[in-house]
Amino acid sequence: MSSNFPNIIARKRNGKSLREGELRQFVEAATALTLGKETVPAYQISALLMAIYLRGMDFKETLTLTRAIADSGQRLSWPGVERPLVDKHSTGGVGDTLSLIVVPLLAACGAAVPKLSGRGLGHTGGTLDKLSAIPGLRMEFSPSELNDLLRRNGCFIAGHGPELAPADATLYHLRDVTATVESLPLVVGSIIGKKLAAGADSFVIDVKVGRGALFPSQPKALRLARWLKRAAEAEGRRCVCVITDMSAPLGRQIGNANEVDEALDILGGSGSAEVAALCVELAAQGVKAAGLAESITAARALASSKLADGSAREVFGKMIAAQGGDLTAFLRRGKERLTAAVPAPRSGWLRRLDALTIGQAAVALGAGRRRLDDELDLEAGVEIVTPRGAKVSEGEPLLLLRANSEERLREGLALAAGAVTIGDEQPTQRQLVRRVIR
Amino acid sequence: MSSNFPNIIARKRNGKSLREGELRQFVEAATALTLGKETVPAYQISALLMAIYLRGMDFKETLTLTRAIADSGQRLSWPGVERPLVDKHSTGGVGDTLSLIVVPLLAACGAAVPKLSGRGLGHTGGTLDKLSAIPGLRMEFSPSELNDLLRRNGCFIAGHGPELAPADATLYHLRDVTATVESLPLVVGSIIGKKLAAGADSFVIDVKVGRGALFPSQPKALRLARWLKRAAEAEGRRCVCVITDMSAPLGRQIGNANEVDEALDILGGSGSAEVAALCVELAAQGVKAAGLAESITAARALASSKLADGSAREVFGKMIAAQGGDLTAFLRRGKERLTAAVPAPRSGWLRRLDALTIGQAAVALGAGRRRLDDELDLEAGVEIVTPRGAKVSEGEPLLLLRANSEERLREGLALAAGAVTIGDEQPTQRQLVRRVIR
Repeated sequence: MSSNFPNIIARKRNGKSLREGELRQFVEAATALTLGKETVPAYQISALLMAIYLRGMDFKETLTLTRAIADSGQRLSWPGVERPLVDKHSTGGVGDTLSLIVVPLLAACGAAVPKLSGRGLGHTGGTLDKLSAIPGLRMEFSPSELNDLLRRNGCFIAGHGPELAPADATLYHLRDVTATVESLPLVVGSIIGKKLAAGADSFVIDVKVGRGALFPSQPKALRLARWLKRAAEAEGRRCVCVITDMSAPLGRQIGNANEVDEALDILGGSGSAEVAALCVELAAQGVKAAGLAESITAARALASSKLADGSAREVFGKMIAAQGGDLTAFLRRGKERLTAAVPAPRSGWLRRLDALTIGQAAVALGAGRRRLDDELDLEAGVEIVTPRGAKVSEGEPLLLLRANSEERLREGLALAAGAVTIGDEQPTQRQLVRRVIR
Repeated sequence: MSSNFPNIIARKRNGKSLREGELRQFVEAATALTLGKETVPAYQISALLMAIYLRGMDFKETLTLTRAIADSGQRLSWPGVERPLVDKHSTGGVGDTLSLIVVPLLAACGAAVPKLSGRGLGHTGGTLDKLSAIPGLRMEFSPSELNDLLRRNGCFIAGHGPELAPADATLYHLRDVTATVESLPLVVGSIIGKKLAAGADSFVIDVKVGRGALFPSQPKALRLARWLKRAAEAEGRRCVCVITDMSAPLGRQIGNANEVDEALDILGGSGSAEVAALCVELAAQGVKAAGLAESITAARALASSKLADGSAREVFGKMIAAQGGDLTAFLRRGKERLTAAVPAPRSGWLRRLDALTIGQAAVALGAGRRRLDDELDLEAGVEIVTPRGAKVSEGEPLLLLRANSEERLREGLALAAGAVTIGDEQPTQRQLVRRVIR
């Protein structure tokens, strides 16, 4: 099999479309590596990834790739679950703690949400890392345990094992270390491939745009949203993509444990109104797609009421308890860290809080990974003390950084100082939801 | 060091020029892999190779790469050698046995020729593989042994050890298996990097063009020739590139032992006049570049006489004997193989003998390698029974194939049948030397 792999690389290198058999061979090779059986060496796969990055893929190739990734393991099903199955995904942001709110909110609205997540890498955090701050919480379950959780609470948030789209693990890791992450067809294959395997009928995908996003430019983010939707629909799923702003971080907290705190605030009715509104919008789109409301207006009203009346908070609590987590212990935890503030360099309006730079500062502080085997400091991170758009005086603290060593704090501080811009004019308020592709 | 390698890949992926430090890091990573110490995994190096293939490199980057490859090991010098040092290289062809003739011919003309070669891969054969058909011949020597051989006979043909441009071994191997061989900057870096390290003052480079060549198109071959020359001259060497035709194989024999037979024929005054004339031209260009003749006309006369009067044959014999080879035993060897002929499919003129297809047939017969660890059958190969341009009758044998199994013979036959084209008009004679870049 490996002997004709160079021909496949050469065809893509020359800008040709790959045939189904070639794409299947590519995905089988990645699957074999994930399962520890090398059939094609990683250096051939990575050369093909770069050729795909630079030469692109048409939609037909992308769909074939997506199906092959979905089929590289088991396609999960959820027997006995009678509610409509809805899945939620984000292309990754800074301070993006939305899954912790939207998943129980969707369940509170009557959906079943089998949310299988990965760990974070780079400046965008991972949902599993955030949840791991809750003492006792299990995130590895067998398929039948997951099915029980879903039937019992209407949702779970868990890690996926090697049975789910195993090809993706190798492709994701290789892309990360070979500068081939931001490839439209590879992103579509990775996201939709996993979602197809996870077995929901409707997907709500939060496609980020702006400096902290995978594709900072609006046209590219829009194209990604359209292809995600097309690939999902070609496989008979309903899919809504919401394009949302990631030029500045979401909410006040960037890190892990502190983002769980923030999610609890929002579920409890306090916290950022902007983030709460976005959660309602994402949940409403899922509710409408799943047929749980007649109109998007009715869906918004339903989601809004289930957040406001504490139903979503209740589902969250049950979900955490069912997965063995101890929220009381979490809330009582010690969180002492060294701290330092980024002060306003002069008086004026806080015009910019750059998501990418703050995300990189959070990584430097220990809240994110540079390499797969990096250990996180779950209490490290950045708190946005003064929101974007505020009027500030020179020296006033804008960001508060937390880390477990002076060295990390220094590195984080040097980065974070570059994230703020003070101007003489009041900035316009940002519109988080840029566009909905229904 | 590996942690910022993805940034280097990303810069080239984005079409930026790499800086000297980045190129040195790339070459150091390849060197470390050759020496068995991984600092950057092969899959990151291969992603960068593909980015270089598709984005290219400017001449300045190419020169920096070339110098870094030369400096990745020891730069050899030849103390006590008083003759002008000339090196000969070919970009690789089918039936290209010229080194076996040109090296002793240059020595017979008064040059010292320290010829360090690699093994063949793909449809172009390697000089060392051909020589390994001679019983007893040693090709691995220490630098001081090589120096003795050079002082004694004016030439040697040997394999280079890991002291010579070790970065190239990894880059060459990875390029071969990741469809990134035909990259102008990578070819220049590989050829000139090794030649600089091998320590000659003048280089004669045979740049092949046509279907069996690295760069089949004339404009690309011409560009390669110009860059090879520029890179060599930037390092203070003299360099002549001769662009020669590789649309059809050179001479009558394609294989290993049979190509040594053919070289002996030409050194002995028989054999293909076309190949002999090309050897004289290559040697003459080297003689002139090295200052061993006043004019190219005088250089041609000198080379021609040294081939005709048996001097080159004598040097060849001494060189082989000094390296432990037994030519008598070689000439008396058993060479029984299964044979099959490719007959003329109809009567007419033999218009085409396709070099690439015949090279691939030779590989199928066992004369070449598909993988680095393939074992060769040194007696296997293709004999061109009827030369291109001849008038043939239907059924007349055109090619004679030799292999050690029916299976190989069948595979070779299926390929070789596609290499011949019969037409109704007599073809024009080909001009082997297309251009000399002096």
